[in-house]
Amino acid sequence: MAAVDALILDRMQSSVGMIPDLAQHLVGAGGKRLRPLLTITAAQLCDYQGNAHHKLAAAVEFIHSATLLHDDVVDESALRRGKKPANLIWGNSASILVGDFLFARAFNLMVETGSMEALGILSNASSVIAEGEVQQLAALRNLAMTEDDYLRVIEAKTAALFAAATEVAPVIAGRPAAERNALREYGLKLGLAFQLVDDALDYGGMASALGKSVGDDFREGKMTLPVIRSLETASEDDKAFWRRVIVDHDQKDVDLEKAVSLLRSSGALESTMVLAKRYSKDAADALDVFPQSSLRDTLKELASFVVARIS
Amino acid sequence: MAAVDALILDRMQSSVGMIPDLAQHLVGAGGKRLRPLLTITAAQLCDYQGNAHHKLAAAVEFIHSATLLHDDVVDESALRRGKKPANLIWGNSASILVGDFLFARAFNLMVETGSMEALGILSNASSVIAEGEVQQLAALRNLAMTEDDYLRVIEAKTAALFAAATEVAPVIAGRPAAERNALREYGLKLGLAFQLVDDALDYGGMASALGKSVGDDFREGKMTLPVIRSLETASEDDKAFWRRVIVDHDQKDVDLEKAVSLLRSSGALESTMVLAKRYSKDAADALDVFPQSSLRDTLKELASFVVARIS
Repeated sequence: MAAVDALILDRMQSSVGMIPDLAQHLVGAGGKRLRPLLTITAAQLCDYQGNAHHKLAAAVEFIHSATLLHDDVVDESALRRGKKPANLIWGNSASILVGDFLFARAFNLMVETGSMEALGILSNASSVIAEGEVQQLAALRNLAMTEDDYLRVIEAKTAALFAAATEVAPVIAGRPAAERNALREYGLKLGLAFQLVDDALDYGGMASALGKSVGDDFREGKMTLPVIRSLETASEDDKAFWRRVIVDHDQKDVDLEKAVSLLRSSGALESTMVLAKRYSKDAADALDVFPQSSLRDTLKELASFVVARIS
Repeated sequence: MAAVDALILDRMQSSVGMIPDLAQHLVGAGGKRLRPLLTITAAQLCDYQGNAHHKLAAAVEFIHSATLLHDDVVDESALRRGKKPANLIWGNSASILVGDFLFARAFNLMVETGSMEALGILSNASSVIAEGEVQQLAALRNLAMTEDDYLRVIEAKTAALFAAATEVAPVIAGRPAAERNALREYGLKLGLAFQLVDDALDYGGMASALGKSVGDDFREGKMTLPVIRSLETASEDDKAFWRRVIVDHDQKDVDLEKAVSLLRSSGALESTMVLAKRYSKDAADALDVFPQSSLRDTLKELASFVVARIS
């Protein structure tokens, strides 16, 4: 991962000063680097011997960072998980254009690997991500969004990149189709679990106290599974509440607390977590085509870690 | 070009309805299709026999369309060349995300060609374009922008894609380096000429009456060569005028007419056109490594056509 970090720092450089400044804010310092970690670990599991996995891992992180920069502008959120988003420091225009730059640099890195198959997987994931983002935008403030719609959106906007991040590893390692399918399935299910946990955490998860970085989705009127499931059993009064805060976007200070209380009492937060854990288990199980090894264990633990963020 | 048009229409489709709607507005109906025309004609000049040039031409148009969609949001222009931009119909968010979709689809098309070298050229051009756009953003409302700065910006934001559009043709046709360099040089110089003409046309070109689609750059406070050259010989009063309208962005209805009058009387519009014609000639001359043929003539005529838009 140190090699991936070095590559990320190197390839976000540009003689145009605003680019590294803004990129540094988002991608330079720290960051979970979960997606590149998946690529690297999957490549090791596949006994890959070259160094193309470093480049693909960095490319995956660049694609992720580019979508985050564009999401900041699209979401118009004042805070992202408690941190000031880049567009509120450098402006929307800079966020859009630096996102484009990172996206293009991701493809530069992929070209350097020489693997057309990896390029196909990641460029396909990129168009699927954009489709998912547009779908989510079209469903904004739409209480009629179904659970199927929602799962399609998160599979596209989130899970597709996780799936691509793990699938490229067996591809560059020249492994058989069964391993490729297994690692793709692992990434896909892990991505679904990750997004469900994220959506539950946005309402404080199962903790009793609300942290300060909750409520982004609520304020943006984003339909997520906790809300969809809570609506299924909501009283007329509660439906009127959701209509006011999501559809009419008429929110008062106390509304987030009320929303969390409804999501908890209806069991919607808990059932979202149950589904996340099922996906996490599916992800781990998909790896059973590989013989037991410490690397396989690491990937299985990553799947547990993703759902352990909430407790 | 009919095959390219069909490919463009096919690949901008998506089950997410907003995507084809918005893409259709920009890329579907009509459009000059100058860049794909360059790729196709250059491929014919190189006696290319496959069909990868259709895919690369469509990819070039998608990259161009993606940057236009993002530019609309960045520029905050109410009209683009007299037409309502997509972001004012579907919103900024949709324009950003559909731009991302088209950009990703461009890479899907390139992957299908199987040419890693063409992918390298176009992905490199894509990151250079983004750098040029960020540079332009940083220079907004900056009267101190020099002619060198300006030429660097337009080489990156405009000419790099023209150069890539023509360079990929000899690459997929497996032609020698001299022809590749010649076609790259042709595209680069043509792109520079194209942008200079565009910048002059934004102030009405050499025509005596102002059309209704002029003044976009002026209203956005964009520094272009006509303004830079006019400033070089401006009186203190005229400098104060430019400072007010560009730096302070304090514009009255009559200011555009005054700006045009200054750009004409100073000879700045005319000298911009002289430079555009020189680049156009350089572009045509670069093709002299190819033996005379009707295809070579066509490309030379395209270079003349670009500067003939203004007269």
